[in-house]
Amino acid sequence: MNIELAASKAKNAAIRMAALKSDLKNAALEAVAQALVNNEDAIIAANTRDLEAAKKADLAPALQKRLKFDCAKIKETCDGLRSLINLPEPVGQTLSATELTKGLELYKVTSPIGVIGVIFESRPDALVQISSLCLKSSNACLLKGGAEAANTNRILADTIYKASVSAGLPEGWLTLVETRQGVMDMLKLDRSIDLLIPRGSNEFVRYIMDNTNIPVMGHAAGICHVYIDKSADLDMAVNITVDSKCQYTAVCNAAETLLVHELIAPAFLPRIKAALQEKGVEIRGDDRTCGIITANHATDEDWATEYLDSIISIKVVPNIAAAIDHINTYSSKHTDAIVTADKAAAAQFMEMVDSADVFWNASTRFADGFRFGLGAEVGISTSKIHARGPVGLEGLVIYKYKLIGTGQIVADYTGPNAKKYTHAPLKKDFEL
Amino acid sequence: MNIELAASKAKNAAIRMAALKSDLKNAALEAVAQALVNNEDAIIAANTRDLEAAKKADLAPALQKRLKFDCAKIKETCDGLRSLINLPEPVGQTLSATELTKGLELYKVTSPIGVIGVIFESRPDALVQISSLCLKSSNACLLKGGAEAANTNRILADTIYKASVSAGLPEGWLTLVETRQGVMDMLKLDRSIDLLIPRGSNEFVRYIMDNTNIPVMGHAAGICHVYIDKSADLDMAVNITVDSKCQYTAVCNAAETLLVHELIAPAFLPRIKAALQEKGVEIRGDDRTCGIITANHATDEDWATEYLDSIISIKVVPNIAAAIDHINTYSSKHTDAIVTADKAAAAQFMEMVDSADVFWNASTRFADGFRFGLGAEVGISTSKIHARGPVGLEGLVIYKYKLIGTGQIVADYTGPNAKKYTHAPLKKDFEL
Repeated sequence: MNIELAASKAKNAAIRMAALKSDLKNAALEAVAQALVNNEDAIIAANTRDLEAAKKADLAPALQKRLKFDCAKIKETCDGLRSLINLPEPVGQTLSATELTKGLELYKVTSPIGVIGVIFESRPDALVQISSLCLKSSNACLLKGGAEAANTNRILADTIYKASVSAGLPEGWLTLVETRQGVMDMLKLDRSIDLLIPRGSNEFVRYIMDNTNIPVMGHAAGICHVYIDKSADLDMAVNITVDSKCQYTAVCNAAETLLVHELIAPAFLPRIKAALQEKGVEIRGDDRTCGIITANHATDEDWATEYLDSIISIKVVPNIAAAIDHINTYSSKHTDAIVTADKAAAAQFMEMVDSADVFWNASTRFADGFRFGLGAEVGISTSKIHARGPVGLEGLVIYKYKLIGTGQIVADYTGPNAKKYTHAPLKKDFEL
Repeated sequence: MNIELAASKAKNAAIRMAALKSDLKNAALEAVAQALVNNEDAIIAANTRDLEAAKKADLAPALQKRLKFDCAKIKETCDGLRSLINLPEPVGQTLSATELTKGLELYKVTSPIGVIGVIFESRPDALVQISSLCLKSSNACLLKGGAEAANTNRILADTIYKASVSAGLPEGWLTLVETRQGVMDMLKLDRSIDLLIPRGSNEFVRYIMDNTNIPVMGHAAGICHVYIDKSADLDMAVNITVDSKCQYTAVCNAAETLLVHELIAPAFLPRIKAALQEKGVEIRGDDRTCGIITANHATDEDWATEYLDSIISIKVVPNIAAAIDHINTYSSKHTDAIVTADKAAAAQFMEMVDSADVFWNASTRFADGFRFGLGAEVGISTSKIHARGPVGLEGLVIYKYKLIGTGQIVADYTGPNAKKYTHAPLKKDFEL
């Protein structure tokens, strides 16, 4: 496949998608849902081929489980499409309106980004979720899924594309990229691809960030912290730590490091050690931690490591400022939580921890588009611009300024006899 | 100067700036205004040295004029600072609030970006404007101004820094970078600098974009178009074209290419030729243009050229779709205007032209932060993410998610007996 040609077609499609009406896009999403149900047998047959190959290749059982796309998954996916239909239209919303001068009105209106390249892992439902988010937000897309799901992805992309184009989406709006070389080709296309969203291993995301001029939205790592302040409720602190670390260790919003205020450490550390050991978690502590409980010694490398496994590093800190400093040094700016009964400490933590998600008395595992109520998510961003944290429809749009005049020229508003600007806020939405 | 050290200090300062209250920041801006007035003599003396050097070096008169920083400029700058004080606080604004479940509240709250590197041209007032926008939005900054204004920039940066730190800004929040090598050093500091805003020549901005992993906001070129639709009012079309091209040719929002619908070309081209020739503008036309008026022949290169001079390229197009297609191919996504009496044509143009600013019946020269009523602007962006068009305070903030719980853990909301999420919108602002 010629990726440059596909991207160029996507660019043309994106221009036309910007003018699509809500009704047409929602009807297309409904057509996609129906087509998935109509193609159920063929989709499951394709998925069975992927599952058999995965079994032969002796893939980890967790990966095999994630690969599965059966009747229940298709139903769940269609439910997701219908909730997306019910979400408000993200494009064409007026963010602000100003009269610059009589008869000259400026509107800041949401608009699609253009062409988005998404590289995602081996869950076939991710393909449906991402492509439908792009459709709803009028963005053309190039999608590359995991190689293990190749057969399932191919039939899903084909089903979505045909149903949506029949419903009025422009040709070329969606392309499935099927090779790693295709991804490498995408990295060079900064004239036609407007945004890349890579999901996957740290090394892979980092590689993409380092090898393209296209803006990248995503997260390379999820080094999340839980800080137990001196006034924390001990039961709550144990609960939140165990949930943040153990509820699902293989994901980016799981905690990797626990910071403990020195005044509460003697009471808290023996309790958390017992609770974590019950879950089979290895503890790596700094010197002060190991002075209170028996544990393996943490090295400097531990503070910068995303275990994605049943391992936790623990450090005793003299005060909240030291906790904030440690987090701002080692955190991947994803999600960090404080457990405390002290409102002022919580406020300080939430203002000064430089991460996308800052939580007070809640598990880091809540950092997720569905749990946040965003509908679906296209990814999680640790960038400092555009969109942070779980990214839903809002992160897939930008805005443009639309100015409506009646022949105004700047020369009349310049110099000694310049007419004046009014800059009066308008209470109306853009409409033509 | 060690730029890495300065950037690291700026990062520490940025963390503390995120927690600064509005009153303190506004008092600091007022202190800066007073210090500028108090240091008036020294500032003017430094500026005189720059002006003398510029005269000796035989700098273009326009550049010498822009370099000047006298009593009137200081007063204007202080007026600017006071309007900035009166603008609403950009940080800590609640963008949305949702109850995830009873006792678990999610707030999306605006926050500073962190450390911003700005490289700007030789207008000393730009230094005051940019640093004060960063202060108001709680961003630390590294600033590099034009070498011609070195003496003026030094005393201005020194005055601003001392006054603001005395008023409570953290040490290291502002650093003046004085060498080109300093800029090169900045490009590597993607761990401490969150955003680069380069202003200057195309080649320079393009060089920065191509040589850093730090996100870049700005525009490399301003190839702006005026399209005269078949139903345009001829007087308005002449006025808007002349203003867009001639009101100030050396700037990015000046028009470089004129597109003319074939049905109006025979009536319009002779009139615009006369009007442009009166202003001394060279016309380069495509074959069809040259079939109607006498003009130099345009080559393909002309469509992709930002003249920044008294030259305009003209192309006759068969319809609005061809105009939109030409613009989306050659425009720098800055500002493009349509002149038409047809509302449907205007709507089509404004939806499908993929530029930051799309104007109907108004001059491209209105694309400017002051004219848009944003207060000051830190630059103009042709990016497709984060911020587009003239960028004021809003483009200097991002958001973070603040979650307030009462001990909730994800395990309770998972599996067969999962508690339910409520996802109910909250009508309140974040407050602790």
